[in-house]
Amino acid sequence: MSTNYTDDSLALHTDLYQINMMETYWAEGIHNKKAIFELYFRKLPFGNGYAIFAGLERVLDYLRDLKFTDSDIAYLKNELHYKEDFLEYLKDVRFTGDLYSMKEGEAVFGNEPIMRVETTLAEAQLIETALLNIVNYQTLIATKASRIKQVVKDEMVMEFGSRRAHEMDAAVWGARAAVIGGVEATSNVRAGKLFGIQASGTHAHSLVQAYKSEYKAFHSYAKRHRDCVFLVDTYNTLKIGVPTAIKVAKELGDKINFIGIRLDSGDIAFLSKEARRMLDEAGFEDAKIVVSNDLDEYTILNLKAQGAQVDIWGIGTKLITAYDQPALGAVYKLVAIEGENGEMVDTIKISSNAEKVTTPGRKKLYRIIDKENGKAEGDYITMYDEDPNAEKRIKMFHPVHTFISKFVTNFEARNLHEKVVDHGQVIYDVPPTLEIRQYAKDNLDLLWDEYKRSLNPEEYPVDLSQKCWDNKMKNIQEVQEMVSDFIHE
Amino acid sequence: MSTNYTDDSLALHTDLYQINMMETYWAEGIHNKKAIFELYFRKLPFGNGYAIFAGLERVLDYLRDLKFTDSDIAYLKNELHYKEDFLEYLKDVRFTGDLYSMKEGEAVFGNEPIMRVETTLAEAQLIETALLNIVNYQTLIATKASRIKQVVKDEMVMEFGSRRAHEMDAAVWGARAAVIGGVEATSNVRAGKLFGIQASGTHAHSLVQAYKSEYKAFHSYAKRHRDCVFLVDTYNTLKIGVPTAIKVAKELGDKINFIGIRLDSGDIAFLSKEARRMLDEAGFEDAKIVVSNDLDEYTILNLKAQGAQVDIWGIGTKLITAYDQPALGAVYKLVAIEGENGEMVDTIKISSNAEKVTTPGRKKLYRIIDKENGKAEGDYITMYDEDPNAEKRIKMFHPVHTFISKFVTNFEARNLHEKVVDHGQVIYDVPPTLEIRQYAKDNLDLLWDEYKRSLNPEEYPVDLSQKCWDNKMKNIQEVQEMVSDFIHE
Repeated sequence: MSTNYTDDSLALHTDLYQINMMETYWAEGIHNKKAIFELYFRKLPFGNGYAIFAGLERVLDYLRDLKFTDSDIAYLKNELHYKEDFLEYLKDVRFTGDLYSMKEGEAVFGNEPIMRVETTLAEAQLIETALLNIVNYQTLIATKASRIKQVVKDEMVMEFGSRRAHEMDAAVWGARAAVIGGVEATSNVRAGKLFGIQASGTHAHSLVQAYKSEYKAFHSYAKRHRDCVFLVDTYNTLKIGVPTAIKVAKELGDKINFIGIRLDSGDIAFLSKEARRMLDEAGFEDAKIVVSNDLDEYTILNLKAQGAQVDIWGIGTKLITAYDQPALGAVYKLVAIEGENGEMVDTIKISSNAEKVTTPGRKKLYRIIDKENGKAEGDYITMYDEDPNAEKRIKMFHPVHTFISKFVTNFEARNLHEKVVDHGQVIYDVPPTLEIRQYAKDNLDLLWDEYKRSLNPEEYPVDLSQKCWDNKMKNIQEVQEMVSDFIHE
Repeated sequence: MSTNYTDDSLALHTDLYQINMMETYWAEGIHNKKAIFELYFRKLPFGNGYAIFAGLERVLDYLRDLKFTDSDIAYLKNELHYKEDFLEYLKDVRFTGDLYSMKEGEAVFGNEPIMRVETTLAEAQLIETALLNIVNYQTLIATKASRIKQVVKDEMVMEFGSRRAHEMDAAVWGARAAVIGGVEATSNVRAGKLFGIQASGTHAHSLVQAYKSEYKAFHSYAKRHRDCVFLVDTYNTLKIGVPTAIKVAKELGDKINFIGIRLDSGDIAFLSKEARRMLDEAGFEDAKIVVSNDLDEYTILNLKAQGAQVDIWGIGTKLITAYDQPALGAVYKLVAIEGENGEMVDTIKISSNAEKVTTPGRKKLYRIIDKENGKAEGDYITMYDEDPNAEKRIKMFHPVHTFISKFVTNFEARNLHEKVVDHGQVIYDVPPTLEIRQYAKDNLDLLWDEYKRSLNPEEYPVDLSQKCWDNKMKNIQEVQEMVSDFIHE
């Protein structure tokens, strides 16, 4: 497949309608009109109280390299029958605009712009699909990982899901996103290499099967590997596995670093308690018990409630696929477009569902921090020319239930958007993944615990400024008049 | 990221424990022992009665290119501290063995080997993670697509899920798998290019927003595109959208091919019926109604029951993420290994869960076709040296509930495994994707309808031969004796 094209690119990694719209705009001569699109999701995943943004690194890679290659153009011509004139234009298309984005690791909530794209109408359409593809998945996994860490607390979590990830990109970018969300290590070696994160793992059942003996298998493993975690459930966990691990650890003494054992099947609550007792009795009080077997935040909470003795959690399927909600619904909406005379004109998309009505115009996003306690009061969406820091008191509005509002004083308003691409040039250096993880962790300290609990968290406020609200109402009114005119014309 | 390594490869796309086991085998001098692994899943996804295998093309690409590059070796050395001697060995590792596989598009069931890997112990471990990663995802999506097609029947289905797919590989390989499962087209242009499948799509809400008018947007689109599907729900579907589509179609007449309209929100049952009535009244009885809005086989069944007037279904999130069950649990188990004297010795993995006990030994897989009605009687797993076609009558055994058995006569036993890699050389040409889709379709004709219904299908028999069963019992017995010896030693 890809091997058939030495110049395969991601320029065609888009929905066909984007290219058809580009062609329409181009034919009409409006393709270079400036357009502003916002990328956001409406509803937090997993019933969680927050999400953790991830995906910017991949988005920047994509934008930097965006260019239709010869084989892309040939395909559009020969198979999809686009005409030469339009193809000539496509050959020169690059991303030439500006991208404003949250930093990776930022806590993010529903209905606030994660990214704002300001570029030509044609370019903005082209990149929509890839941006959503990247941000939806990586943010979903970073959020799931963070949610698991909230339940696990200080114990170590390892990401083990490559074999169940949705193809290869999901395995590696998902591992990175999981680390951003707080996970300590991944089993995927390539993810370790690409992102400077810890790769981790010892041996599988097949090692024991190959020797037909745990005793021989553990000894062989230990000859070459100082750090030893022995998998003890190939034949019978408590009758053979654990006793053999203890026996080998005793025989080898200081020759190895006996980290502990791993349980991968059976009744983890029972087995971990028994194994703990056996290890302690043998003098291995420091030996760790690693478990892995279809775990997620729910099973972990239950295992903890049963007094399971677990030191390290290996999480596979349920994390890397976000099993209980495998899609985040981020969308990408046009909020303003260049008018006849170069001015920017707001646009709106109406829906019978109030939450789906877009908020028009070029806007900014602030996190309002209470200066007294250092905690976040909520997020605040303003029109671009507003500066909440210049005001003594701001009125924060619930964007749907507008009768809910509050006044906030003595605050700091932190701008959550950073300009990361300027006129097509990437001007932002993505920090190392481990720094992003730390940023996410520090970030969560801004939130009250009530927003972070895994079950029924409080709703964090994401509010509009008065000006932003009034502008939205004005735009809705205009559409309603247009509909009315249309019906009565 | 990947841009940091010009020689990044997929050799490290594996779990770290695989490399640690390779090192153990290599240090012990048993890395070149011949090993046989089988890849299979235990339980069908979605409560479906069958799965559709996909993933072979990608697996063959992976095996063909398998080689540790300089940057891979440097990472293993500098970051993971593997020693030089072992790294020297890794540099020369390629896939040198044999791969037997089902063809893509084959109907596949629980507990039967999809692939059989026969190669060195070390190589077999290295490739496990990638093979599972690929086959689990692609088979899951092909199966979901096939399930949707069973409900949709003869109407067209388009795959629209790129923005919600789990990163980029999932979008393109998922689109291909969806086509193998029966879908007619994808919105992803790159998937169209890479796999020769139909890319499809017209325009989005943003086109209408850019013109602030459906009338202008549709006219502009039609200037450059003969085939027109107008999206009618940007402002108000029945009051403006559909009337405008009809108006533009009438004005343009033969200048365009007015395929129809698309509905992407609201009450699809109601709106599609009203839109159908309006189109018919305007003389556009042939115009199609395309719908897309979080659809899957359940909503489609309900919409049909409500008499929704839909001609083409666009399926996004729920297909590309396999939303209701986003992971297939295929595993990869060692079934035989070379003994002291070059002979192959069976291996087994025991579990307290009967379904998780592996079936030892080198085996074959047959589909038993009744010669009278041409339908499949079930699948039949035998030891490698058995030939069911040489027998008049075979006894088929339920592999768990062994008291369920039946005798079959007048049958043809079709070997479902093809040798696709021979001593490391790929000897199989993957057919074009559309041929694979046809193969899958023909294949399903072998199954009685009772196995294909979407709710509570009959269980298709996957049975062991008497010899295979006896061999499994013998192996279990041996482990039980080993456990007993261990406890009493």
